[in-house]
Amino acid sequence: MSRGALKIATIGGGSSYTPELIEGYIKRKDELPIKEIWLVDIEAGKEKLEIVGEMAKRMVKAAGLDWEVHLTLDRRAALKDADFVSTQFRVGLLEARVKDERIPLSHGVLGQETNGAGGMFKAFRTIPIILGIIKDMEELCPDAWLVNFTNPAGMVTEAAIKHGGWKKTVGLCNVPIGHRKQAAEKLGVPEENLFFKFAGINHFHWHRVWDKEGKERTQELIDMIYGPQEEQESHLKNIWDAPYHYEQIKDLGMLPCGYHRYYYIEDEMLKHSIDEFKEGKTRAQVVKETETRLFELYKDPKLDYKPKELEQRGGTHYSDAACEMIASIYNDKRTDMVVSTENNGTITDLPYDCVVEVSGPVTSHGHEPYNWGAFPSPARGIIQNMKAMEETVIRAAIDGDYGAALHAFTINPLVPGGTMARTLLDELLVAHKDHLPNFADDIARIEKDQPETVAYVTELMKSN
Amino acid sequence: MSRGALKIATIGGGSSYTPELIEGYIKRKDELPIKEIWLVDIEAGKEKLEIVGEMAKRMVKAAGLDWEVHLTLDRRAALKDADFVSTQFRVGLLEARVKDERIPLSHGVLGQETNGAGGMFKAFRTIPIILGIIKDMEELCPDAWLVNFTNPAGMVTEAAIKHGGWKKTVGLCNVPIGHRKQAAEKLGVPEENLFFKFAGINHFHWHRVWDKEGKERTQELIDMIYGPQEEQESHLKNIWDAPYHYEQIKDLGMLPCGYHRYYYIEDEMLKHSIDEFKEGKTRAQVVKETETRLFELYKDPKLDYKPKELEQRGGTHYSDAACEMIASIYNDKRTDMVVSTENNGTITDLPYDCVVEVSGPVTSHGHEPYNWGAFPSPARGIIQNMKAMEETVIRAAIDGDYGAALHAFTINPLVPGGTMARTLLDELLVAHKDHLPNFADDIARIEKDQPETVAYVTELMKSN
Amino acid sequence: MSRGALKIATIGGGSSYTPELIEGYIKRKDELPIKEIWLVDIEAGKEKLEIVGEMAKRMVKAAGLDWEVHLTLDRRAALKDADFVSTQFRVGLLEARVKDERIPLSHGVLGQETNGAGGMFKAFRTIPIILGIIKDMEELCPDAWLVNFTNPAGMVTEAAIKHGGWKKTVGLCNVPIGHRKQAAEKLGVPEENLFFKFAGINHFHWHRVWDKEGKERTQELIDMIYGPQEEQESHLKNIWDAPYHYEQIKDLGMLPCGYHRYYYIEDEMLKHSIDEFKEGKTRAQVVKETETRLFELYKDPKLDYKPKELEQRGGTHYSDAACEMIASIYNDKRTDMVVSTENNGTITDLPYDCVVEVSGPVTSHGHEPYNWGAFPSPARGIIQNMKAMEETVIRAAIDGDYGAALHAFTINPLVPGGTMARTLLDELLVAHKDHLPNFADDIARIEKDQPETVAYVTELMKSN
Amino acid sequence: MSRGALKIATIGGGSSYTPELIEGYIKRKDELPIKEIWLVDIEAGKEKLEIVGEMAKRMVKAAGLDWEVHLTLDRRAALKDADFVSTQFRVGLLEARVKDERIPLSHGVLGQETNGAGGMFKAFRTIPIILGIIKDMEELCPDAWLVNFTNPAGMVTEAAIKHGGWKKTVGLCNVPIGHRKQAAEKLGVPEENLFFKFAGINHFHWHRVWDKEGKERTQELIDMIYGPQEEQESHLKNIWDAPYHYEQIKDLGMLPCGYHRYYYIEDEMLKHSIDEFKEGKTRAQVVKETETRLFELYKDPKLDYKPKELEQRGGTHYSDAACEMIASIYNDKRTDMVVSTENNGTITDLPYDCVVEVSGPVTSHGHEPYNWGAFPSPARGIIQNMKAMEETVIRAAIDGDYGAALHAFTINPLVPGGTMARTLLDELLVAHKDHLPNFADDIARIEKDQPETVAYVTELMKSN
Repeated sequence: MSRGALKIATIGGGSSYTPELIEGYIKRKDELPIKEIWLVDIEAGKEKLEIVGEMAKRMVKAAGLDWEVHLTLDRRAALKDADFVSTQFRVGLLEARVKDERIPLSHGVLGQETNGAGGMFKAFRTIPIILGIIKDMEELCPDAWLVNFTNPAGMVTEAAIKHGGWKKTVGLCNVPIGHRKQAAEKLGVPEENLFFKFAGINHFHWHRVWDKEGKERTQELIDMIYGPQEEQESHLKNIWDAPYHYEQIKDLGMLPCGYHRYYYIEDEMLKHSIDEFKEGKTRAQVVKETETRLFELYKDPKLDYKPKELEQRGGTHYSDAACEMIASIYNDKRTDMVVSTENNGTITDLPYDCVVEVSGPVTSHGHEPYNWGAFPSPARGIIQNMKAMEETVIRAAIDGDYGAALHAFTINPLVPGGTMARTLLDELLVAHKDHLPNFADDIARIEKDQPETVAYVTELMKSN
Repeated sequence: MSRGALKIATIGGGSSYTPELIEGYIKRKDELPIKEIWLVDIEAGKEKLEIVGEMAKRMVKAAGLDWEVHLTLDRRAALKDADFVSTQFRVGLLEARVKDERIPLSHGVLGQETNGAGGMFKAFRTIPIILGIIKDMEELCPDAWLVNFTNPAGMVTEAAIKHGGWKKTVGLCNVPIGHRKQAAEKLGVPEENLFFKFAGINHFHWHRVWDKEGKERTQELIDMIYGPQEEQESHLKNIWDAPYHYEQIKDLGMLPCGYHRYYYIEDEMLKHSIDEFKEGKTRAQVVKETETRLFELYKDPKLDYKPKELEQRGGTHYSDAACEMIASIYNDKRTDMVVSTENNGTITDLPYDCVVEVSGPVTSHGHEPYNWGAFPSPARGIIQNMKAMEETVIRAAIDGDYGAALHAFTINPLVPGGTMARTLLDELLVAHKDHLPNFADDIARIEKDQPETVAYVTELMKSN
Repeated sequence: MSRGALKIATIGGGSSYTPELIEGYIKRKDELPIKEIWLVDIEAGKEKLEIVGEMAKRMVKAAGLDWEVHLTLDRRAALKDADFVSTQFRVGLLEARVKDERIPLSHGVLGQETNGAGGMFKAFRTIPIILGIIKDMEELCPDAWLVNFTNPAGMVTEAAIKHGGWKKTVGLCNVPIGHRKQAAEKLGVPEENLFFKFAGINHFHWHRVWDKEGKERTQELIDMIYGPQEEQESHLKNIWDAPYHYEQIKDLGMLPCGYHRYYYIEDEMLKHSIDEFKEGKTRAQVVKETETRLFELYKDPKLDYKPKELEQRGGTHYSDAACEMIASIYNDKRTDMVVSTENNGTITDLPYDCVVEVSGPVTSHGHEPYNWGAFPSPARGIIQNMKAMEETVIRAAIDGDYGAALHAFTINPLVPGGTMARTLLDELLVAHKDHLPNFADDIARIEKDQPETVAYVTELMKSN
Repeated sequence: MSRGALKIATIGGGSSYTPELIEGYIKRKDELPIKEIWLVDIEAGKEKLEIVGEMAKRMVKAAGLDWEVHLTLDRRAALKDADFVSTQFRVGLLEARVKDERIPLSHGVLGQETNGAGGMFKAFRTIPIILGIIKDMEELCPDAWLVNFTNPAGMVTEAAIKHGGWKKTVGLCNVPIGHRKQAAEKLGVPEENLFFKFAGINHFHWHRVWDKEGKERTQELIDMIYGPQEEQESHLKNIWDAPYHYEQIKDLGMLPCGYHRYYYIEDEMLKHSIDEFKEGKTRAQVVKETETRLFELYKDPKLDYKPKELEQRGGTHYSDAACEMIASIYNDKRTDMVVSTENNGTITDLPYDCVVEVSGPVTSHGHEPYNWGAFPSPARGIIQNMKAMEETVIRAAIDGDYGAALHAFTINPLVPGGTMARTLLDELLVAHKDHLPNFADDIARIEKDQPETVAYVTELMKSN
């Protein structure tokens, strides 16, 4: 690592999150001797890159720092000799997410952009790109760390480590951060006085909590947060916090993450999502509007700090986590973080060579997970199925294998049966045609043999 | 074992299957030196016991055998010094199955009497009984073999072996027999020329097939049986044979069992079952009618052979398999059978101490499974989830634990979400009140706090 | 497979065992439609090949069979289109075994030609050759079965399957055959009335026995065969049957194999071997003399049957087992045999991808092991160490890695410490120089830097 | 835990180590609000308890602290309401260790008081006592932590956790501390700048080291510490640091601990130990002399600090580690320590429920090990064998089972064969008669049937 003159490259630099990232670096200016920040994006994202890039420059300047901020469409230039590469790109932009969510919902099925039908397609689009980035890195920056927070972060990180062979990859997510804060608040103690152990896979993990006196507080937190339904409901901020069934969570004996709602109360989540769909307010559509507003703000040449509005974007803390990760690696800070990393037996119920999301200190040689061991059986089975689904998605993405893709859709618990699996798969293939070169033959076949599929997609997308 | 003078006791002796069982014994009269057959049933089944029992006596007599056939309501008398105990009872009779299927279907959810909502309740009712039988066996016939074909055979067998500690339990199912015949027929070779390996859990197993020349024929059979959907459809006898999606099965690389339709094409099965429900022709209702007809036949004092109509009952080959099992144990015949037995690492993906359904010879000291090893990942995950669900059901059944029961319903892939899980659980608890002493407190609570649940169930059952 | 006109090639065809092999084929002439038998050997074995080959021809002729018996030094000609390839070669001939045993014994250490110091060197010499044979087979007979009975059979088979990738390899040993006969004799029942389960690795396996009534007889056999030491002693035929310590075997709860004496009563075996060494009667030397006598007999142009003297050679039943294996594969006989085959979880305590020696039927698609599961802990640890040693030996053999070789010697339980490990390793490297091309550099280094090592070996070998 | 007024009880309080323990508490007086220290010993240790106990009082007084120091022979009084219980007792005192070492050495076998013949007997004597202590703790101080540093620390800790069910047990050893210091010194960096991962079992672990820049330094340390033998030799302080064989350690790829010398260069260690034995200077004898001198010093009423001479006792840092452990638990300091704790999958090669010695932070709820995963195969096998030996020793100790004891001796790599195993076992049973109530029957049998065994032991002990 170039000690004393860091080069950090961010793929997908034109993202609306970039200001948070820059703010994170600035906060850590004493820890991180940054020399160059490279924001790289693709042609289609050029305008956004320029807007947000200029703002990044203003922020750096306002902080009185001499860091160089480079904006580029040339990925290889950005990667050359980089010390850290962070990835926050979205293949097909938000438009793709709209399709990921709306096509399934039009059939009464959850899209869910991380582990559902939408998430599987996001993986199909993203995995070939991340493997391509790694090919470049092997040549241009063979010692760099890859800090991935492109979703679905679990599958993308597994592809990078297991299939790309890039061991120095760490996958990041902001969900655990929220749960840490929530527990501290509920218990009325400072967060640092609690000891957390998270284990699972991205967007599908559970956690346990101990206090400074050595007492496990997990069950108490279950009672406080997920106790009798009426109570939960009275505290709901929005339907996304739909109440879990208390007795089930109590039996679980661990704290679920927010995304478990898609599995534990799938029916509630589906109902709500269908309502959103009907109102034209799927998450993707809402985010798109927020983004538009954000970029309007970013254009203001006087804005040289992260605007408060960004926090509504969702994904808050994400970039800050990435900065902390980089600082902890660079300085061997051993910050306790929840990271998507190689399993190696940390969770004994999952394959040795898969990627899991677990707690542990981030050292200068990477993440060192605390051992977790085995899950209680009802948690064990459900996560084993999710991991198998992920493995099948990754295989389908790499091989462009229609049978594997159909198999993944069939076993995904959010897809209600094989015939619907095929319908969604075919429609999403057609809809994302431009970003799925590995599936070109199957897409051509569908376009030829199933004109009704093409028509359906076209019609639906019009109504967006 | 009492060599030379066998006593065989059948719990649930009043079943319509009994004639097949008796026929099976008669077929093996040279292998099995039977002295006494005890058919035992409960008060509510007394009439059926007498009808079918008298017929059994006629069959034995017609075969020119001096076997004693005892009909009794005294289970302990039947168990006393028995060599083999076979179980084919149904707690709550067919009426209970009607509830298991119709309550879920009334909400648009599959009941599925083996691994679905209905199957979980069948387990709740049956497991305490099987553990009670084992308590009696410890005292009355400590060396006897327990041959279980009471459904859900996998969970009941696991409860018997792991929780009851009765190692000499073998669980039986007729599904593999059909698949063996099908493969032989498709390939046009005698069944005994093929080598089969089945692995999975009851009603959820896959198989591979090799021929006498050492060639694996699995993929070829997939093509022949599950090839392009149009072809499959043209061969369908009934909707239960609804076509799988060929590409998915091809990717699987193993032959599925018939019950996989509930998981791989759940949407198709659901559609069909809802139609049946609307017509008042759920499987339970159809079977009830068949049973009524069968018992009419059985009453005929001239009938002294198994009537052809029994084959339409479904479950054909079941009793014959039980007889072959008994003959193979008694004579160390080493017949290659598919049995629910202790895993002990046969399937490395499932817990060491669980029960699996696998191939191997039946010896005089029990079933010796061929090693199976690991599944390809998409099969691995789905069966791991099913096994975890089974373990949770068994725990709920033994402890009468509402939270565990709700958890099992929540993770069961045939139940579409936690809120529906709770609805079904509560309604089924109320509906099966008489047969669920372990859940008495929760049933009382529901009856008190949720009058609408009671009303719904009452109303629905009226319409039966 | 060429149905109806089999070609069988035997590498190491000049072995003194060949007559047993030919006898085995003749015994099975109705099962095996042999057309050609190819006996192949190397230049150094030419004379023996001709002697034993001519005798083989006489045996075939005497049996009235029209099989072609080919003698050749051209391995590729022999392999071309072969259906079965059996291997019984010995790199360096018996002379090499003499070194394997005498060098360690000269230091008071067991040589043990299968799993001890000698066995490790036999593996170093043999593994590169077997991998070379497989390379040829890929080209010349890609569908052939490889039936290995070259020692150390476990390590050679593991190298063939795991490193050579030749899945159609079966490893054979005659030790289990003897133990089966012994149990039947002791219990006074026909062998076929007993059910045996063997599990472990080559020359390091245990077994359990059940009778036709389903009763396990293992502990009873332990008492009969290994009961109080005085009794054992009174039955000893020779010191090789040195008594085990009864209480230890009883605690083990399984029947050991003969070779466990090297581990369980290593001190006794060592004492005896040192005595043999001093008298110039190590096993290798004795066998050499037997061989000389055998070949004298074989020269007799009137001898056209396997002479009784061959049975004293040791290794009896070996070739018969090989013939039965071939017949069982060819005819899908499903003969229950103990075979070195892929583990795949059969023994859960050992690596999934290693080779184990276990019971099961031999089908036309290969060996189907009965599942074994886990060992009791004192058996578990010792075999795990042996397997790790084997893996290290194989790695050293393939890579020609001195550090790995030294590591294997250090952890081998028959080598009493790291300094002796190095001494033996260096001396054996020098002694076997001609057959260890992979270690050429290290041998050159030793010859240069350690003249005393060279001198010691030279001197010792003179005294042979 | 009684926050603000700690009671700490030390079983074996009369040990010569006690001053280091007291010093450790005094050093941490600001972290540990101690109220009472109870030193408890048995009648036979009363004199030593008084000497060292008075000294402890002087030390506390000199530090200006108001802690109560209680000296007692009443274990129950000491345990009553204790917050921490530390164990440093030695059943049979040093006299027993003399027997553990001298009896094996008299036959030319290593005694090795931790994992060798001596260590197994130390376990036989100690395990029943620790289980008795736990019985008392259940009643008298159910929330206390048990900090064990009684050897063999691994087996004693496993017995406490797995068989005694005392989950709040932590086992301690000073060996890793020395290796940490050594690495820091060799690399010339502060110890806290390095990241260590230790894994294995007590006195049988390996470690890896990374620096602050994220570079693994393990291989470099191997080269520096264990490089070419001549170099190692030139740095030897004493024979206990006998050189490893560099190529073997290099192949291992991890840093061994000092005790691996008994396994990797057993021959060298044996030679040296026999020399010591002949000179009457076994480790036990040397320690006995040191102890005598120490207690002379301790008698000095003016001595109120830990004398420098204690450091020569060996076991230095031990008590300090115990104090740090207590402080880290009490204050949730999360000090990174190497602890004997439940495996739970941390080392995937060892049983899930065994005890391993691994790195991780000590929190207020116990030790949280970093995940380790799998070992390279030659390390895997050897430790699996050691763990199986440990399990067998523990079983023998609890059940007083002669067969299990003989089995453990037979598979222990430091015992050269089954016949020697029996000889040593019998002699040690007789020699330790007073402290092995569980083996009373077998001892009586030996005394009756094997007078020569008794005579040998008597004679040998005379010469001490």
